Amino acid sequence: MPISSSNSNLFVVFGITVILLSLKALLLGAATAARRGKSKSFLNAEDAAWLGGAHMNPDPEAVARWGRAQRNDLENLLPFFICGLLYVLSGGQALAGYIYCGVFFCSRVLHTIAYLAARPMLRRNAYTFGFLVIIILGAHAAWLMGRLLS
Amino acid sequence: MPISSSNSNLFVVFGITVILLSLKALLLGAATAARRGKSKSFLNAEDAAWLGGAHMNPDPEAVARWGRAQRNDLENLLPFFICGLLYVLSGGQALAGYIYCGVFFCSRVLHTIAYLAARPMLRRNAYTFGFLVIIILGAHAAWLMGRLLS
Amino acid sequence: MPISSSNSNLFVVFGITVILLSLKALLLGAATAARRGKSKSFLNAEDAAWLGGAHMNPDPEAVARWGRAQRNDLENLLPFFICGLLYVLSGGQALAGYIYCGVFFCSRVLHTIAYLAARPMLRRNAYTFGFLVIIILGAHAAWLMGRLLS
Repeated sequence: MPISSSNSNLFVVFGITVILLSLKALLLGAATAARRGKSKSFLNAEDAAWLGGAHMNPDPEAVARWGRAQRNDLENLLPFFICGLLYVLSGGQALAGYIYCGVFFCSRVLHTIAYLAARPMLRRNAYTFGFLVIIILGAHAAWLMGRLLS
Repeated sequence: MPISSSNSNLFVVFGITVILLSLKALLLGAATAARRGKSKSFLNAEDAAWLGGAHMNPDPEAVARWGRAQRNDLENLLPFFICGLLYVLSGGQALAGYIYCGVFFCSRVLHTIAYLAARPMLRRNAYTFGFLVIIILGAHAAWLMGRLLS
Repeated sequence: MPISSSNSNLFVVFGITVILLSLKALLLGAATAARRGKSKSFLNAEDAAWLGGAHMNPDPEAVARWGRAQRNDLENLLPFFICGLLYVLSGGQALAGYIYCGVFFCSRVLHTIAYLAARPMLRRNAYTFGFLVIIILGAHAAWLMGRLLS
C-alpha cells in the first residue's frame, strides 16, 4: 500500500469526502441538463430540434440556477482536492484533517441546499466556511511540505 | 516507487487515460480561442481592438459550441480523476480499472465528436456512459476505502 | 512516507506550486463575487433583493473579466495538476520538474495580471507558455509511465 498505516484512516475520510462531493457536482450537472429538457429550452440548436423546444443562450433562470450551483461546486472542489491530497500525502495530523473534511463537506452540502432554495445569506455563509477551510488547509499543507525539504 | 508493484499496470493505464483527456480538454480550450479569432468576435474589448473584430458576450454559436464541449470535459474529468485516483491508491482490481478507464475514455472521445458534429443523441449517450462509469467507480472506490479503516 | 526520498524535494516544489495556484483561483472567485456587490449587479434575483441592486445575467464587463480570469485558471490548473502529479508519482527527474513548475507558475501569475490589466498580448503569451508546459509535461509523464509497464 502506498499510504502509510499511520495515515490510513485520514486517507479514507478524505477520500470518501471528495468522492461524495464529486458525485454531488456530477448529479447537479445531470440535473441541470434534465431541467433544460423540462423547461424545453436548450443551449444547442440540434437539441431544440430533436426534443422540441427553444434554442436559448444563456439558460432560463430555473435552469441557470442549477448550473451555477454545479459550477460553484467544481470551483471549490478542485482547490480542496489539491490542498487536501497534499495534506494527506505530507503526513498531516488526522484530527485536523477530520475537521477540515467535516466542515468542508457540511458547508458544501449547505451551499447547494441554500442555492437551490434561493436563500442568499445561508448560501454566502456556507460558501465562506468552505472558502476558509481551503485557505487554512492549503497553508497547513504548505507548512507540512516545507518540513519535508532536504 | 510509491505505487505498489501489484498495481503498477493499473496506475499506468489510469495515468495515461487522464493525461490524454486532460490534453483533449486543453486543446478544446485553445481551439475555442482560435475560433474566436476566426469569427472576429471576442469576449474582451481589448482583444477586439487589438485583433480587429467585435466585442461580444456570450460567444457566437460557432465559438460557444467548442467552449461547451470543453466545459463538459472538465466537469467530468475532475470527478473521474478524483474517484479513479482513489480507486488506484486503494488497491483496486486491475481488470475492473481497465474497464472503467477504457469505457470512460471512449465515451469522452465520442462525446466531443458528437458535440462538434451536432449529433445530439450520440452526445447524450456518450455523456451517459461516462456519467455511469464515474458513479460506479466512485462507489467502488468508497467501498474499497471502507475496508482500509482500522 | 508514501513519497520516495529521491523525489521529496520535487514533491514539495510541485505541491507548493499547485497550492498557491489553487488559492489564487479561489481568491479570484471570491473577488468576482465581491465585484458583483460593488457594482450592485447580481446573477441571482434573491441577491439583488437582499443587497439592493439589479438582477443581471451575464455579469457586467467589470465583473465578468474577473470571472473569466478565474475560469481560465481552473481550466489550466486541472490539466497541470493531473499531469504534474503523475510525473511526480512516476519518479520524474527533479530538475525538469522544477522548470515545469517554475515556468507554469510564472506564466499563470502573469496571465492573471495581464487579464486584470487588459493587456491582451501579454495575456496571450502567458497563456501560451502555460499551455506548452502542460503539453510537454503530459507527454513526459506518459513516457515515464510507459516504462513502468510490466
